[in-house]
Amino acid sequence: MQDTADRPRRPWGLWLVGARGSVATTAAVGHAALTRGLVPPTGLVTALAAFDCADLPGLDGLVLGGWDTADDPLAKRAEALQAGGVIPQGLPGAVTDALDAADERIRPGIAAEDAQRHPAEALDRLRADLVAFREDHDLERVVVVNLASTEPPMAPDPAHARADDLLTALAADRPVLSPGGLYAVAALLAGCPFVDFTPSSATALPAIAELAERAALPLAGRDGKTGETLVKTALAPMFADRALRVRSWSGMNLLGGGDGATLADPSSAASKLASKATPLEAILGYRPEGPVRIDNVPDLGDWKTAWDLITFEGFLGTRMQLQFTWQGCDSALAAPLVLDLARLTAAAHRAGRSGALDALGYFFKAPLGSDEHRLDRQFLTLIAWAAGLGEGSAPEPTGTV
Amino acid sequence: MQDTADRPRRPWGLWLVGARGSVATTAAVGHAALTRGLVPPTGLVTALAAFDCADLPGLDGLVLGGWDTADDPLAKRAEALQAGGVIPQGLPGAVTDALDAADERIRPGIAAEDAQRHPAEALDRLRADLVAFREDHDLERVVVVNLASTEPPMAPDPAHARADDLLTALAADRPVLSPGGLYAVAALLAGCPFVDFTPSSATALPAIAELAERAALPLAGRDGKTGETLVKTALAPMFADRALRVRSWSGMNLLGGGDGATLADPSSAASKLASKATPLEAILGYRPEGPVRIDNVPDLGDWKTAWDLITFEGFLGTRMQLQFTWQGCDSALAAPLVLDLARLTAAAHRAGRSGALDALGYFFKAPLGSDEHRLDRQFLTLIAWAAGLGEGSAPEPTGTV
Amino acid sequence: MQDTADRPRRPWGLWLVGARGSVATTAAVGHAALTRGLVPPTGLVTALAAFDCADLPGLDGLVLGGWDTADDPLAKRAEALQAGGVIPQGLPGAVTDALDAADERIRPGIAAEDAQRHPAEALDRLRADLVAFREDHDLERVVVVNLASTEPPMAPDPAHARADDLLTALAADRPVLSPGGLYAVAALLAGCPFVDFTPSSATALPAIAELAERAALPLAGRDGKTGETLVKTALAPMFADRALRVRSWSGMNLLGGGDGATLADPSSAASKLASKATPLEAILGYRPEGPVRIDNVPDLGDWKTAWDLITFEGFLGTRMQLQFTWQGCDSALAAPLVLDLARLTAAAHRAGRSGALDALGYFFKAPLGSDEHRLDRQFLTLIAWAAGLGEGSAPEPTGTV
Amino acid sequence: MQDTADRPRRPWGLWLVGARGSVATTAAVGHAALTRGLVPPTGLVTALAAFDCADLPGLDGLVLGGWDTADDPLAKRAEALQAGGVIPQGLPGAVTDALDAADERIRPGIAAEDAQRHPAEALDRLRADLVAFREDHDLERVVVVNLASTEPPMAPDPAHARADDLLTALAADRPVLSPGGLYAVAALLAGCPFVDFTPSSATALPAIAELAERAALPLAGRDGKTGETLVKTALAPMFADRALRVRSWSGMNLLGGGDGATLADPSSAASKLASKATPLEAILGYRPEGPVRIDNVPDLGDWKTAWDLITFEGFLGTRMQLQFTWQGCDSALAAPLVLDLARLTAAAHRAGRSGALDALGYFFKAPLGSDEHRLDRQFLTLIAWAAGLGEGSAPEPTGTV
Repeated sequence: MQDTADRPRRPWGLWLVGARGSVATTAAVGHAALTRGLVPPTGLVTALAAFDCADLPGLDGLVLGGWDTADDPLAKRAEALQAGGVIPQGLPGAVTDALDAADERIRPGIAAEDAQRHPAEALDRLRADLVAFREDHDLERVVVVNLASTEPPMAPDPAHARADDLLTALAADRPVLSPGGLYAVAALLAGCPFVDFTPSSATALPAIAELAERAALPLAGRDGKTGETLVKTALAPMFADRALRVRSWSGMNLLGGGDGATLADPSSAASKLASKATPLEAILGYRPEGPVRIDNVPDLGDWKTAWDLITFEGFLGTRMQLQFTWQGCDSALAAPLVLDLARLTAAAHRAGRSGALDALGYFFKAPLGSDEHRLDRQFLTLIAWAAGLGEGSAPEPTGTV
Repeated sequence: MQDTADRPRRPWGLWLVGARGSVATTAAVGHAALTRGLVPPTGLVTALAAFDCADLPGLDGLVLGGWDTADDPLAKRAEALQAGGVIPQGLPGAVTDALDAADERIRPGIAAEDAQRHPAEALDRLRADLVAFREDHDLERVVVVNLASTEPPMAPDPAHARADDLLTALAADRPVLSPGGLYAVAALLAGCPFVDFTPSSATALPAIAELAERAALPLAGRDGKTGETLVKTALAPMFADRALRVRSWSGMNLLGGGDGATLADPSSAASKLASKATPLEAILGYRPEGPVRIDNVPDLGDWKTAWDLITFEGFLGTRMQLQFTWQGCDSALAAPLVLDLARLTAAAHRAGRSGALDALGYFFKAPLGSDEHRLDRQFLTLIAWAAGLGEGSAPEPTGTV
Repeated sequence: MQDTADRPRRPWGLWLVGARGSVATTAAVGHAALTRGLVPPTGLVTALAAFDCADLPGLDGLVLGGWDTADDPLAKRAEALQAGGVIPQGLPGAVTDALDAADERIRPGIAAEDAQRHPAEALDRLRADLVAFREDHDLERVVVVNLASTEPPMAPDPAHARADDLLTALAADRPVLSPGGLYAVAALLAGCPFVDFTPSSATALPAIAELAERAALPLAGRDGKTGETLVKTALAPMFADRALRVRSWSGMNLLGGGDGATLADPSSAASKLASKATPLEAILGYRPEGPVRIDNVPDLGDWKTAWDLITFEGFLGTRMQLQFTWQGCDSALAAPLVLDLARLTAAAHRAGRSGALDALGYFFKAPLGSDEHRLDRQFLTLIAWAAGLGEGSAPEPTGTV
Repeated sequence: MQDTADRPRRPWGLWLVGARGSVATTAAVGHAALTRGLVPPTGLVTALAAFDCADLPGLDGLVLGGWDTADDPLAKRAEALQAGGVIPQGLPGAVTDALDAADERIRPGIAAEDAQRHPAEALDRLRADLVAFREDHDLERVVVVNLASTEPPMAPDPAHARADDLLTALAADRPVLSPGGLYAVAALLAGCPFVDFTPSSATALPAIAELAERAALPLAGRDGKTGETLVKTALAPMFADRALRVRSWSGMNLLGGGDGATLADPSSAASKLASKATPLEAILGYRPEGPVRIDNVPDLGDWKTAWDLITFEGFLGTRMQLQFTWQGCDSALAAPLVLDLARLTAAAHRAGRSGALDALGYFFKAPLGSDEHRLDRQFLTLIAWAAGLGEGSAPEPTGTV
């Protein structure tokens, strides 16, 4: 990472929705371990040489905070992840102080119930939390990243179309947003860029986009691309560009952990399945046969196992097959991307970019502002865009609505 | 494909080394079936919209010929492939006349023995075959594509370093080249671009490169990327660009058919294994542990089955795995690429390009003139290069040494 | 097969429910091809040396007939299976005459509607069909095998408990049985042993069992064990007998063809899933976590692809995994078993056995009369039982109610 | 396990060749953990209800000792296995005292060199070690189990044919035996039953068998069946008994750890590959095509990964496939079997059985004295045999040559 000796840097903040979840805990342990030089930056995309010229804010100056509805301390969560093999033996113990400090900065999240009954009050409190975090720690800027559990799709509402209508409805305590939506609005009202790492539909609402534009704030999302879809979007271009016709693509996803339990609920799974189906169709130009299944197998814990069977047709109609089994640890795959997204979004904010950051599509299953799903082209777009952030000297955005 | 009504086109030729092999036979059946509208252009890369502006020579004007050491007629070979499921029922019967016509144009290949004992005589005859083919059919140009069986690596010889030394040695009947090398020299001496679809080391010799440059002829190769390596080069960038560390990558390739039998011979397999190992190291920047095996399992016939196990490390050292099983029909995968390479190389020749066509690396395991192995970037390079071929009006190359 | 020169044999019959389906058509082609010596008896369990002493009725004397609701001729169905790769090229053509003759013996099946509205009439007609078949061809006995599509589970009815109540209800045109149930009753009333190769619940009804006992007729079933469950019951004893604890066993079944379409309907799939879950629990003594899924992927046709992931625990709690992918052609796997079951059931009938033939559990996912699911022990039981059939000289059963 | 209150039991011994290796260390930790009630007997076959009536010697009374050429303490080895995930966190620490006590009883093994140069001296020392172990701990009997690394096949020697010739050759310091052979002879001369858990060829020598018979000692082996071959022998009977023709069976075994390194040496791998090929041929009655490969992939550590592809043919020649991936921890799979074999062999010794214990074939790839490789039938044989051990009251064998 480029050293800019002449521009003294203030600290900056990353505020996590679901700050005590597996991904957030892994990110917190990893952040502390990286800044103390205990681990190499494996899995951290922005540590690649391709980003050297991007002048991204360093992890050294990063302060973590967030919301969570649960209240068991981070250090305890880290031990559980250590027992499950997600975090190596001994690492949580080596960064207990950092975890305890971060833990102090976690504020209560809002329950689905509160989002329904008292949205105005909830919103005010959330916004105040962010402002306090920024001021208490004298942060140059704060990026909010949503890591909460997958929510069921929101019921459509006319207030979703325009920013003013949405704010009016919320002020009138109308239950027009899920918690995920409230977190997004709170972030934007507090002048914070918002990144949606979940399949929540909130960030796709026109009203939210309008709020972001109005506040000159970047918005990014949705649904981190960390497992089966990652592999799919690496492989599908191979078929498309070799003019091979994919006849069927079936996928079975087995996972345990909190995510497995959440997705065992069909209404939550619906959000996830929707963002899993689109990339294939976008890349191939047609929709192959075949189901995508997600099932809860508690025994697998964080190790999501996905099996995909692809049948395809080549020259003269010859039939062929590819199958793969992916066994990835979701938290370990997602956590460094959260740090990457924080750095990139903060740099975009500093560079005066606002609205949907389509160049961050590389990280998402359902990229805001982009129809490009081919993994390698997303990466090329990302590094070109990141290189552009370091150039010129955009005026600092004011960052309030 | 662009229609250039004002420039009347003469027919052009594709001369196949190994013209009665599985790939060549499949290409011949496919060429006839495509030009008669019997099948869609599945598997034909140059039929993609991305090549519309490239002004490639059409398949309609293409005349097939070639060398083979075997002499069973193409139509009979096609029936065998039909029985093996490589070519659909009924298709060979529908194009028998075209196969018989192509069969008439196949000339005897040279045995390894002849290449050893009478290279000068062999070379003269091969060169004369090509000139006769071009003249008999009034062809604008002829592209030679080597589809012969994998040869053992050639013993190094000082004559390989410079074109004149090589020609002198051959004239003196010194056995300095394998049959694959003689085919390449004959093509260049006859003014024909040469494409090596096998892992033969001949096209990598400096003397051959010099011959091509001297004759202003394009050269392309080596070793068609149609199966396990294709998948590898689609997947490996995913690991590299996500900063995931690949710890081991092991591969087992099982195949039958003629290729399986050839590769059961360790000295031939050595050539193949060498071109299979490089791409991974080039993409990752380091060489992961793990063997690559090729075994002959006659029962599998043309359906090569590859199983790869990849173990990798993510954030904080977490260990994960990906495995895939590829079951592809080698002939069906290779045959359309042979037609693609013929079209692209002919267009390059027409556009005055000479020497190693590094932009054709997309098609090869060991791309001449390029260290780029990432599949998607190879594709981007290819389409940009192809688009450039159609522009301007390069003088027609003279094409003789 | 033992030659019993001194006991001249009359022909015998096999009557198939779903006589124009894929399994029945494959059985018909295979029966003709086997008796003409065109193919070896691959897949035919009773052709193994272990059955040499069982004195089973020969395939030479077997006459095929059956019911079907479809009316496209067998020869046409055989051609479709040939095109789909289930039956080898040329074989249907070589036995067209036999197929046409069998086709003449196929009578209309009954629709679900008829079973609801006019069960008494339907039953009479079905019974008459069987009697006519036996008399027209002077058959020693007729075995009825149900190969119809999977039916949804039947609604419970008090008439299912006792034979007399069932017959009374049917006589009163009460819709107490699905078509599968009516076929079973018709068979028993006509003095024919009944084998249920589907997961239909009819053969498990106490009233049907009582009917069979009363008529001294054998009954066998249910749900042919031909794919994923076959592999499961071969593997599960390995875990049980090595004292390894299976923690999860997840399965995904993808298939096309008529079966795939039927099982895309959740109510039909329920029957199938129920018979797939039991064997594992019976063998292990506990029920491991993990879903079993069946999905329709038309592109796969008859080639059912099943992927199973098994996680297990060994000494000191160490966690391990096994996964397998099965790609089997259901019709090719089931058809010879239908011939096996016909031979074995006919021999049991001749030997005077009646009621549930628990020794035939080897062939079924939900074996009637047995809790044994371990594949190898089922096989040992089967060959011991079959050997016993040939001994002694049981009086010929009268075979009428 | 049956309680025989009226027969007070003396302790008994298990002497391990390779007592500091991964399997032995895991067995030692497990033995201590089991007797202290810290873990359930998962993976311990003799803890199954089927062995309740076999009156096997208990693990409570078992004393461990052994030979090893390495000298790092058991407790340290256990920690390494804990770090590698083979032994759960905390368990080694909970049994350190037991490990340290066992460590005291480990004596130096003999190097290959010593077996070549001074076999007579080596043999005397080994024999004395065993006698001292038995006397020092007042053991009723001592079973020796060979867990040493795989040795290259021994060069044939005339002295291998008869016991007296072998003893004479050894007395004359002729290098006729590998270390594995010397361990076996020492055990028999000391009156100890010998179990070969490695593919060593020593136990198959006629001279060794004669020694065992002469001393009325049981002999068992060879090559523990713990991974790919275990699955193979569970699956192959399914094909055989369903009359399905296996056309090819290819296997790739990848493993790290000490075993991986040993087997990277082709001469050692030869022994292992030989015992891996036989079972399939024995079960099927013919030898299918297809290679078996073993490769060293250090990254996999103790987690052996095997991929097998089986192509088979069913009714009418239809072609189908099964593939499986096994990911098992070799040490965790082998260690409990070592305890099982010790108990069963001790019971056989007590019951007066001598010579090759063919009923223990269930545990081995190359079972001494048996051609049965079908896993389930081996298990049935084992439990019947074990039940027979408890019956009657055989006179205690004297156990010396």
